[in-house]
Amino acid sequence: MTYPRGFRAAGVAAGMKPSGSPDLALLLGDAGTTAAGVFTTNTVVAAPVTLSRKHLAAGGGRGVLVNSGQANAATGPRGEEDAVAAVAAAAAALGLAAADLLACSTGVIGEPLHLDRLLGAVPALVSELEVDGGAAFAAAILTTDTVVKQATADADAIRVGGAAKGVGMISPNLATMLAFVTTDAAVTAPEAQQLVRTSLAPAFNAITVDGCTSTNDTALLFASGAAGKEPVEPGGTRWRALASAIEEVGASLASQLIHDGEGVGHVLLVDVIGTANEAEARTVARAVADSPLVKTAAFGADPNPGRILQAVGATDVAFDPAGVNVWVGASKLVDSGTIPPAYFADDALRRAASAAMTEPEVVVRISLGEGPGASRILGCDLSYDYVRINGEYTT
Amino acid sequence: MTYPRGFRAAGVAAGMKPSGSPDLALLLGDAGTTAAGVFTTNTVVAAPVTLSRKHLAAGGGRGVLVNSGQANAATGPRGEEDAVAAVAAAAAALGLAAADLLACSTGVIGEPLHLDRLLGAVPALVSELEVDGGAAFAAAILTTDTVVKQATADADAIRVGGAAKGVGMISPNLATMLAFVTTDAAVTAPEAQQLVRTSLAPAFNAITVDGCTSTNDTALLFASGAAGKEPVEPGGTRWRALASAIEEVGASLASQLIHDGEGVGHVLLVDVIGTANEAEARTVARAVADSPLVKTAAFGADPNPGRILQAVGATDVAFDPAGVNVWVGASKLVDSGTIPPAYFADDALRRAASAAMTEPEVVVRISLGEGPGASRILGCDLSYDYVRINGEYTT
Repeated sequence: MTYPRGFRAAGVAAGMKPSGSPDLALLLGDAGTTAAGVFTTNTVVAAPVTLSRKHLAAGGGRGVLVNSGQANAATGPRGEEDAVAAVAAAAAALGLAAADLLACSTGVIGEPLHLDRLLGAVPALVSELEVDGGAAFAAAILTTDTVVKQATADADAIRVGGAAKGVGMISPNLATMLAFVTTDAAVTAPEAQQLVRTSLAPAFNAITVDGCTSTNDTALLFASGAAGKEPVEPGGTRWRALASAIEEVGASLASQLIHDGEGVGHVLLVDVIGTANEAEARTVARAVADSPLVKTAAFGADPNPGRILQAVGATDVAFDPAGVNVWVGASKLVDSGTIPPAYFADDALRRAASAAMTEPEVVVRISLGEGPGASRILGCDLSYDYVRINGEYTT
Repeated sequence: MTYPRGFRAAGVAAGMKPSGSPDLALLLGDAGTTAAGVFTTNTVVAAPVTLSRKHLAAGGGRGVLVNSGQANAATGPRGEEDAVAAVAAAAAALGLAAADLLACSTGVIGEPLHLDRLLGAVPALVSELEVDGGAAFAAAILTTDTVVKQATADADAIRVGGAAKGVGMISPNLATMLAFVTTDAAVTAPEAQQLVRTSLAPAFNAITVDGCTSTNDTALLFASGAAGKEPVEPGGTRWRALASAIEEVGASLASQLIHDGEGVGHVLLVDVIGTANEAEARTVARAVADSPLVKTAAFGADPNPGRILQAVGATDVAFDPAGVNVWVGASKLVDSGTIPPAYFADDALRRAASAAMTEPEVVVRISLGEGPGASRILGCDLSYDYVRINGEYTT
């Protein structure tokens, strides 16, 4: 987060989490920093999402205050007031207007924010803001994540950095996925929004742990301009380099998220090609990646082409069943709509596909015809551990 | 199946299943029996589905030949030929035209039908047709089902009976769910089709084990007219009594299916009310019933209102989040969009809701507003056993 120049960050333990782990984070860009973001499409939205949307719409957003432990969603008017109070306190301690700060929360839905503890920790949080505080920030935003997720990239003399969290309730549109990306390029807020839409959001919208869209999903981009270069303007070589660096950071963070998904042993790279358009390919790829039968088969390292076909056919995307081809790894398991009898008769074909399924990343390629549509969705297996984590995690 | 007069049935072990369990079933109505049915909406359809649609369209269908062990789906032209050959052999042994028989298959997708074994068993199957053969039929259609599913009902002097199978890949639209209902009422084939649509299909379209729609789903209704009564005509008292008896049998079979769902410990009765129309209520109820986070919470007997809200908000059905109320059993866990702080502070509320979650049937009631729309979906928990069964079941 602080690899680009012009940013300071911090993370402290405020006592929001029962575990005592770091749970309050702050990012602040230099004066002039622009911001943009995308938020959950869930109709039920958390209080900090409402607040951040409002502050962004007002042209604000030099930084963001993040707490983990409570999601501050389904908390009613009290939740709205808590979010306002938290941001107001942090902004005051920084000598800023409240609109200069955005807010994110992640954790238990419905439980009121432990506002007293949050407010008590603000002075320490502000005093610990450092130009190398990115790692502390990245650690304090985690919930059931098992590893910190960070990434950096360079676009000539411009730097891009980022951090993210999220392991369940992940099917971003967006998921509680939180992603923060910084750059020291100089771009206006509308240009930053364009970069979020074209270069940052797609990577996060292409992952799914469980098909569940959280109430708190947020992806934010902050641009400090501290690289000391001319502003980057849309369309030019430098814009494309910046967009590419943001894409690289987004793709790395999204991949780190799915690999750390709840109970994940295998990541499924579901590629669908040959549809009429990209939206159809995405619909089919997502249906396959979210199918419990495909996901449990992946857990069992069972290629199970019948289940893949079932998932492909269950959407409302039209195709000719006799034109479907499916590969698992390098093994072609559906040929012109038919599962080769050799798959059942001859152990070699099944064994090769099973071996591919035991890898940490499994490529499932599905061709539905001759159309130009193509899409990749990153999914994962459904394991005993997913059931254990979500059956035992108390709300 | 043979409770209504005018039907004979049988079930034998043909060697289609490795286990040696019964796997070939036959139902035959007396001359004049009418038939109707609904089939999977999956784009990938099994060969027997194609054949049954064709025979029904030709006005046929005095009975049905069912095999378990292989689904005869994704088997290409050979699969189509196998289905034709199987039905032709059974019809010939019965002295009937091929169109007089429908066909259903359930089991492994892609594996070619063991046609030789099927053909070898046809003489024994035909010779065992009995007026009390319903139980043998119901046993021979099972795959990973743990119990036989049968139901009967009466409409004055008219009888209705039925059998069904299916434990996974169940989200009928239809799922491999097979359901067979018989009646000795006299109705024409188009009238039978109307009864299937209005009185039989809804019960099966309201259950979901895993949100997966199979390639083989079929629900068939056969009417022998053997009650010896006047034909039942649409609109009258006798029609309504017959429709009600068919609904009763359908609801019983659907409930038996979901209770025997793969790894199911708790059945979730998800009631959504207050939407603009029934379709919206069904969309939301299905989203809740299919949410992996709600399903794992049910497995852990954790009421988890935040996850229910997440699922409610993730569909494209519009509603005011501040107008949402949710009950688990008798406990109100979301009140005007807010989870009561008492849920987190006071063990009594959570304990009452948790106790309701430990029951075999858990009612989750969701009110989204004041609209007239209402729907109930029967879902289930997501357990270690579901993962074990589907992670270890070899294709």
